Amino acid sequence: MTAPLALGVAGLGTVGAGFLRLLAEQSEVMARRAGRPIQVVAVSARDRMRDRGTDISAFRWHDDPVALAADPAVAVVVELIGGADGVAKTVCETAIANGKPVVTANKALLAIHGADLAKRAEAAKVPLYFEAAVAGGVPIVKALREGLAGNSFRRVFGILNGTSNYILTQMQESGRDFQSVLDEAQGLGYAEADPSFDIDGVDAAHKLAILTSLAFNCPVDFSAVHVEGIRHVSALDIAFARELGYRIKLLAITQATANGIAQRVHPCMIDAESPIAHVDGVFNAVVAEGNFVDRTMFVGRGAGAGPTASAVAADIVDLAAARQAPPFGVPASKFGRFEAAPMDRHRGPYYVRLMVYDRPGVIADIAAVLRDERISIESLIQRGRAAPGQAVPVVMITHETEEAAMVKALEKIGHLATVCERPRMIRIEGL
Amino acid sequence: MTAPLALGVAGLGTVGAGFLRLLAEQSEVMARRAGRPIQVVAVSARDRMRDRGTDISAFRWHDDPVALAADPAVAVVVELIGGADGVAKTVCETAIANGKPVVTANKALLAIHGADLAKRAEAAKVPLYFEAAVAGGVPIVKALREGLAGNSFRRVFGILNGTSNYILTQMQESGRDFQSVLDEAQGLGYAEADPSFDIDGVDAAHKLAILTSLAFNCPVDFSAVHVEGIRHVSALDIAFARELGYRIKLLAITQATANGIAQRVHPCMIDAESPIAHVDGVFNAVVAEGNFVDRTMFVGRGAGAGPTASAVAADIVDLAAARQAPPFGVPASKFGRFEAAPMDRHRGPYYVRLMVYDRPGVIADIAAVLRDERISIESLIQRGRAAPGQAVPVVMITHETEEAAMVKALEKIGHLATVCERPRMIRIEGL
Repeated sequence: MTAPLALGVAGLGTVGAGFLRLLAEQSEVMARRAGRPIQVVAVSARDRMRDRGTDISAFRWHDDPVALAADPAVAVVVELIGGADGVAKTVCETAIANGKPVVTANKALLAIHGADLAKRAEAAKVPLYFEAAVAGGVPIVKALREGLAGNSFRRVFGILNGTSNYILTQMQESGRDFQSVLDEAQGLGYAEADPSFDIDGVDAAHKLAILTSLAFNCPVDFSAVHVEGIRHVSALDIAFARELGYRIKLLAITQATANGIAQRVHPCMIDAESPIAHVDGVFNAVVAEGNFVDRTMFVGRGAGAGPTASAVAADIVDLAAARQAPPFGVPASKFGRFEAAPMDRHRGPYYVRLMVYDRPGVIADIAAVLRDERISIESLIQRGRAAPGQAVPVVMITHETEEAAMVKALEKIGHLATVCERPRMIRIEGL
Repeated sequence: MTAPLALGVAGLGTVGAGFLRLLAEQSEVMARRAGRPIQVVAVSARDRMRDRGTDISAFRWHDDPVALAADPAVAVVVELIGGADGVAKTVCETAIANGKPVVTANKALLAIHGADLAKRAEAAKVPLYFEAAVAGGVPIVKALREGLAGNSFRRVFGILNGTSNYILTQMQESGRDFQSVLDEAQGLGYAEADPSFDIDGVDAAHKLAILTSLAFNCPVDFSAVHVEGIRHVSALDIAFARELGYRIKLLAITQATANGIAQRVHPCMIDAESPIAHVDGVFNAVVAEGNFVDRTMFVGRGAGAGPTASAVAADIVDLAAARQAPPFGVPASKFGRFEAAPMDRHRGPYYVRLMVYDRPGVIADIAAVLRDERISIESLIQRGRAAPGQAVPVVMITHETEEAAMVKALEKIGHLATVCERPRMIRIEGL
């Protein structure tokens, strides 16, 4: 057990370089905790010469990361390339086929191919770890897989995308609208040039699909996640939310329901006093609701070189100490059946905002549509008078309603002559 | 690996009975996660006949928990008796001497004898796990030991006593004073008949000593914890804290300083906007500050049958799955030296509240004492005029000051003729 653990690191971008820096700085601490030294023996990246702020000359170089995965000198493959398909997948498959444990930060890969990779790892009897794939600064994968292993979960939810949370927090604090905050975030480097992956909810959905498998011990099924992003959240909605005692957060929620497992990513109105409502800026949070532990929350940085490297390092220490666990908490052969609850069957209260021309009968028309869909209104805000031809907002909070009815009602309301914009709806999530 | 893991459970109070209920309800889930069934084979408690809401007739009964620990049918001993000395200690020592893994929820035992028990467990090559000993609903022991193993920690702090946090939260929300809230909490069962263990900070200090060893990989040293409770926090202080943008929380803090490791439990003023300021009621929270992960926070229920049973169950699943880790993160033989930072050398800003007779020269006298101790004042609140002979509060916030100077200054100020009560001081903790 005192022989060094030999790592091959594929991918030396922000995360890979950060991980090498961590290993250099923390080697003594990690060796004490792991019971043996940990050494990088080989690396692979697109450009050998790029300055990464860390010296890689001592490591064997592979132009081809797949060759690194097959290199007999490499005992553990650390995949930090990214991407659901392409070379990252081949690297992981090659490592497993060669009987090598894999540590990866690749949420897209796991969301799409997680169940298959878990099966391969199980057949080859090698660990497949991915703490860094979900909320890097939050050791939630280990918590669901081991730390809360005595529980059955009702619901696991979280703020899983730092960029979206940063934008919503800025909108909340400044009163500005989505586009102006997004532009600024891009200027500051908090949002990508093409931000759609983050703000349209895809990144959060990848992570949610992984959490679902960990919480419910079923195969990962990304295709079953209902995904909506934050593009349509307006400054007006943020202001109404505040007035109503809510905050708007992009939540990723997985939940055991009577119809199966519901996985959804969408903006939510949540009680402004709930602990997760105070998780602001680029921070991530995950709340797990177990039948014995009750509610437990984990908060930390979701991304960045340091937190992600910290997560990779934890997996490496586990491997070095020979601590094994099935990738998703139970062996793939013991997965439960995944039954996806259709989004149509979602039930909950809704916030609805309409922009209407202030004419007699407007509210009567809207109320009639809601009545026909059997949707009952808990409260309604109509305020101020507009100049002729100008629109005013009407905001409604409904009692618990089924999604299908709400969608139908909004479709009809959108066609009313007095309603001048597409109706906006934000689900209210009870926490 | 498919043979059942045979447990002996010593102690069937709230936690023990809760753990048996969890095992009964979650046996299938746990077996899937552990890779093998988990079975209780023997139990021991003071009173065999007591109704615990769970049937124990199928288990072998031991009047003597030490005999249970030595019972050859028992593979793992679960110690849920409690108490730093006496039988709980003998049970753990006997189990270890018989080569059996131990799972315990006993914070007092670990705070006092943790280093010795870890040495014994190491010598006997058996695991010693205690997730339930610190903040049951928060898997923080595993997080520090494994999930954050790539980090060196600057500071770990938390709200570790639910009773104290409940009382402070109630004082905050109701404006009532300490004694009236304590009386009510006792009536509701949230505080013990003799509440001193909780409200004087001893319980939090036990847990902190354990966290210190996990974070800094040094021997547990409870004797080095500076301990103050919440008895002297007044409704007036709560009100001033709010006015100044603070909340008052009983924090347990362990910190690497230039003088060694500082361990302290005392009421703190913290920024009202900080995430931990929103952890209210009986909830616990732990914040770990690592050099790569940055700041990460864990929140959950600190006590109660369910959360504590959940923590015990996680340890059991680890044992059943043959996942091993040194009790405090590194082998006892690899512990670093523990150098305790003296409390005298603590540095930080202070909140000071005096009750003074409103006479000319009062502030001048106080200011002179502070000047002599080289303490500089950041802000001062003196408000309202009292009727002759009646006292008014004077509140000061100091710049960063050394504890020794502050203690000396308060001693002198307390002797001024115009100061009519013992001066009250609350440390301000930067988060």
